[in-house]
This record gives sequence, structure tokens and C-alpha cells, in this order.
Amino acid sequence: MEKVAVLGAGSWGTALALVLADNGHEVALWSHRKEHADEINRLHTNEKYLKGISIPEAIVADNDLSKVVDGAKHIVLVVPTKAIREVCQDLTKVLKQKVIITHASKGIEPETYKRVSEIIQEEIPKEFYEDIVVLSGPSHAEEVSLRQPTTVTVSAGELHVAENVQDLFINSQFRVYTSPDLVGVELGGALKNIIALGAGISDGLGYGDNAKAALITRGLAEIARLGTSMGANPLTFSGLTGIGDLIVTCTSSHSRNWRAGYKLGQGNDLDEVLEQMGMVVEGVRTTKAAYQLSKDQEVEMPITAGIYQILFEQADPRDVVDQLMTRIRRHEMEDLTNILDDQMND
Amino acid sequence: MEKVAVLGAGSWGTALALVLADNGHEVALWSHRKEHADEINRLHTNEKYLKGISIPEAIVADNDLSKVVDGAKHIVLVVPTKAIREVCQDLTKVLKQKVIITHASKGIEPETYKRVSEIIQEEIPKEFYEDIVVLSGPSHAEEVSLRQPTTVTVSAGELHVAENVQDLFINSQFRVYTSPDLVGVELGGALKNIIALGAGISDGLGYGDNAKAALITRGLAEIARLGTSMGANPLTFSGLTGIGDLIVTCTSSHSRNWRAGYKLGQGNDLDEVLEQMGMVVEGVRTTKAAYQLSKDQEVEMPITAGIYQILFEQADPRDVVDQLMTRIRRHEMEDLTNILDDQMND
Repeated sequence: MEKVAVLGAGSWGTALALVLADNGHEVALWSHRKEHADEINRLHTNEKYLKGISIPEAIVADNDLSKVVDGAKHIVLVVPTKAIREVCQDLTKVLKQKVIITHASKGIEPETYKRVSEIIQEEIPKEFYEDIVVLSGPSHAEEVSLRQPTTVTVSAGELHVAENVQDLFINSQFRVYTSPDLVGVELGGALKNIIALGAGISDGLGYGDNAKAALITRGLAEIARLGTSMGANPLTFSGLTGIGDLIVTCTSSHSRNWRAGYKLGQGNDLDEVLEQMGMVVEGVRTTKAAYQLSKDQEVEMPITAGIYQILFEQADPRDVVDQLMTRIRRHEMEDLTNILDDQMND
Repeated sequence: MEKVAVLGAGSWGTALALVLADNGHEVALWSHRKEHADEINRLHTNEKYLKGISIPEAIVADNDLSKVVDGAKHIVLVVPTKAIREVCQDLTKVLKQKVIITHASKGIEPETYKRVSEIIQEEIPKEFYEDIVVLSGPSHAEEVSLRQPTTVTVSAGELHVAENVQDLFINSQFRVYTSPDLVGVELGGALKNIIALGAGISDGLGYGDNAKAALITRGLAEIARLGTSMGANPLTFSGLTGIGDLIVTCTSSHSRNWRAGYKLGQGNDLDEVLEQMGMVVEGVRTTKAAYQLSKDQEVEMPITAGIYQILFEQADPRDVVDQLMTRIRRHEMEDLTNILDDQMND
């Protein structure tokens, strides 16, 4: 049993804190807002992010970062990717011990195309951490907080560190597996949000499950194509952090990326949607990053390009989806074989 | 424009007949029951299988097989896999011309482990057909009949025949692609029904989207493993007739395999479920065939084995699903790498 610092008290940070508390750990939960920390400590609730869930005494919230990380061997970073740099800079100022940093944030930075672990590496000097770990997989926070069966994958630079984090989180409902492919695990979780936006758009337009399944299938092919070009093992996209996370995000109204897409499909523009959501929609920034990168690297990503046009160029969602449905080549294998070629050439 | 004979007036046969009629073809639709054919011709409905859909005059139903196939260049076979041998035997007695046979049935025969195209080959002498084609993909009949966007794949012995069938069916809502992998296209459509039963069982037990996504992901890995051992290209399982069809079948209440699984998860036994359904549930026979085959060929299929135990050995669904959630190996890649090994050894 040890002290674990969880940074970020949104839905997923709080759900992971619950898993750690269930496993008998002492959890310090950081929120950047004092009133939010106070709600968690006094009322033992987190109504905005995990409605109706009771938070045990073993979880103590605070908005003072130095108190939260004091004495913790493990730091779990669950803030929006947009905030990662700033939180890491603040962390560097208060860290006194060497830690293991596990992040569970799903995004890619526009302009730099950095994955979250790369951003952490840039912002925190190496002497402060033993290794950086990613935790990802098909996991709605709401279900985790209800202790429903869930599987996730962890990956780190060193396998023994991944196994250490596996041991920290694993229990009978929360199953944790390890993967050697850190790049693939990070990219699967980030890129799938683009396709979730697309699935939501299709549903928002009133199209059915047939259209959505086609979009998800072709979407997986193109994010695997980009991921492979960025150094991922293409096989990882067939696993829990690839297809698994893609399915859960594209077919459930729990998913905020899907919900944002749904509202776009119904005719709202991006600003309206983001205002209505009131939460971070990671897929929006990731679409921008992936679109830029696909241009740079000349990777064909028609679905991502279409969603980019809807988000940032006021394209009509119906025109975009109809074009996507008719543009697939006459022979399906031409597309699929491209991925295999990518694998073979690696 | 030509005469096309569609054999089988269930949901999918009728939906495919509608696509062909939309494309201007004259469609003869065979039902084995005279009253069913009469309903279609007189009331222009097919209430049991496609509620609320109006059937155009261009579709003429009949229970006389020889009249239906007379003068047709194309025969589209859409009967339950259980009935394929008998219908092919009857067809051999009445065929006077050489035809192209397209089938859209999704199953594998227990004991023989034959795919549908192999059964057709066994039952119909070669002089009666030019080629056998499979049509498969993520396509709920209900959505096709509502003209919602849908993608399917066709595959044949000869590419030019597949392209001929592609031209027959393709229109702006119903997108048809070709694949060179006939074995993979047939197996994806058949084997996915096993996993759909499993997804339904998980939902019926009250488990959430996280558990279902894990089951689908691991399920895809194991059907790809079996399919590869039967001669399929593993990449086909990443396409429309693999993941695509799997997603649509596992996440929609339209799917009768999912619905049968749901009832099983709620505690009904197989006989009760099949009686309540009143329609063929292909996944039941396919689970038996795949389970036998995995034993014979020593292919590891824990999900299929678990579903077999629920269907045929009165195993408790909760015990089986809980075991499946905890049995995945510590390192996820061990499982995934097995598939890659299979690919490399081919």
C-alpha cells in the first residue's frame, strides 16, 4: 500500500483514484480548483464529472500541487492534453523525489505532433522520474466508477515499470495488461477520438449502424496507417487500445467525442458544440494535429480530412459523409493492402 | 436490366431484392411458403421480416422454384445455411441455363466445417454455374430497406465475375466493393456471429460497454486466428466483412444473434431463446462448427469455447464471462503476436 498522487479530478482521474483506493492505496487527488477539492473532501462527491458516485475517505483532494505529490512514488497524470505542459512545469517546481509518471491522457499536440509522453519528457528533467508509463484502453469512467468489468493496457520504456503500474491498478474488475508498444498505445487512444467524432456526426445526421460501421472500419485503417508512419506497431491497432477503445468510443453515448460529433451532425457549429459540452473534447485538437501530420507525411486520411473540414472549414456534414461513403475504391483490398505494405516496409 | 432470381424471402433476401429492383432489374423472389409469396404479391409487404416496408411491383414472389429461376442469369441465394444443401439440390433439378450464383448466407456447417460456397460446389454440378460469389458486410436488412447508406463486399473465384455482381447491386446508397479473398469474406461473416452472441450475453448480464469492447476485441483476434488457419487472408478481418460486420452485429439490437445472446445472458436456456426468436440464429450452429474445428486444429478460442459451454453444456453465463475477463494473459501482445506469427508462417 502506498501513496499515489492523481493529478486531475475530472471523470477519468476520479475513476482511476477510485480503483487505487479500492486496492488499498492512499490517494491524493489534485484539482486546480479549490471549491472542487472541497466538494470531494466534504461531500464525498464529484457531481459534475461522476454523478451519483460516492468517494471514499481514502481519497483526499487538494488544489495544492506540492502537498499532493509530497511523498508519492507514483504520479498519475490525467489532465487534458492541452494542460499537460503547464502541469508538468508546475510539477517540476515541487518534486523532491524520483517518481514513476503514468499518464492517461489521450491526445496529440497540434504543430509539434508530440505524444503525451514526449511532452512530459520535454517538460520534466530526467532526474525527477524513473520512467513514463501510458495507461489506455476501452474504459468509460462512469462504468469503472460502478466497478463494472473493464480492461486496460499499460506500456512503459521498461517492462518492469509497466508491471509495477500493472500491479498498482489491477483488481478483479479492473484488468490491466502490458504492451511493449508505448507509441502504439498512446496513438491508438489519441487518434480514435477523431473517428469517434465521425461516428457521432454520422449518427447526428440520422444515418444508421451500417454507415457507422463502414466509417469505423475505414477509420481504423487510416489511423493505423498514420500510427504506423509515426512508429507504432500496426498490430497494436487490433488490440484493446486500438479497436477496443475505438468501438467503446464510437458506439456509446457516454463518449464526449461521440456526443460532440452528434451535435455537429445535427447542424451545430464547433463553437456552439464546445460551449454546450462544457468539457474538453480531445478529438478536436487531435483532428487538427493528425490532419497537419497526414499532409506533412503524405499519409492518405480521407475521413480525418473530412472531419477537419467540418470542424474548421464549415463544410456541410452531410456532403462530407456522403462523399466518404462513395469514395472507397472499387477494390477494398487496395486500401487494406496499403497497410500491409507499410508493415512489410518497416 | 435483367431478370435476377432471389431465393429466400427473409429480411436479407427481401432487402437485396429491393436493391436490385431500385437498380431497374426484374426480380423473381422465391419463398418456400405459398402464403408468404401471396402476401408479397398482393399486399406488397413482408410484415414478419421487414415491417412497414413497401415492396415494388418489379419484385414478383413465387413458391415455384422452376418459375423463379427460369431465364435468370443471376441467382442470389439467401436462405439459412442449414437449408443450403436442400435448396441447391432442388435448384439442380430445375436449372436449364448456366448461371452466376451469389450467396449472402453467413454460416459454417458443423461436422463438415464447410463454407457456404463449398456446399454449393458440392451440390450443384459445375456445368450449371459460371462462378460462385459471396456478398457480405456490415448491413442490417432493415437499414438497407430504408435506403440508408450501406457498404458490402463481394468476392468470387474470378475477379471479372465479382465485378459483374458489383455492377448488378451498386447504387448511390448501396456501395459494393470487391475483394480477392473469398475464403476470408465468407469466414468473417460467419464467425462474427459467435462473437455477437457473446456481446449479447455480456449485455444481458448487465455488464457495460467496457466489458463488451474487450470481448469484441479479443473475439476478433480469435476468429482471425481460426480464419487464417482455414486459409483466409488475416487482413480481411480488418475490413468491412471482418471488423465492420462484427461491430454492426455486436452493437445493434437489430442483430438477431446479439438478441439471442442477450436473452441467454438474462438467464434463458437455448431452447427457450430459439422458440422466442422464431427466426434462424446462425451463430448457434456456427459456434458448434467453430468449436469442433478449433479442437481439431488446436487453435486457441477461449471465447468461442465459453459460448459453446453456455449454449450446449448449460454453463452459467456469468461464470463464463467473468472467467473470460480474467484469463487474458498478463502481456496483451502475447495473444496478438500469435496472429502475426500465423501471418508470417503462411
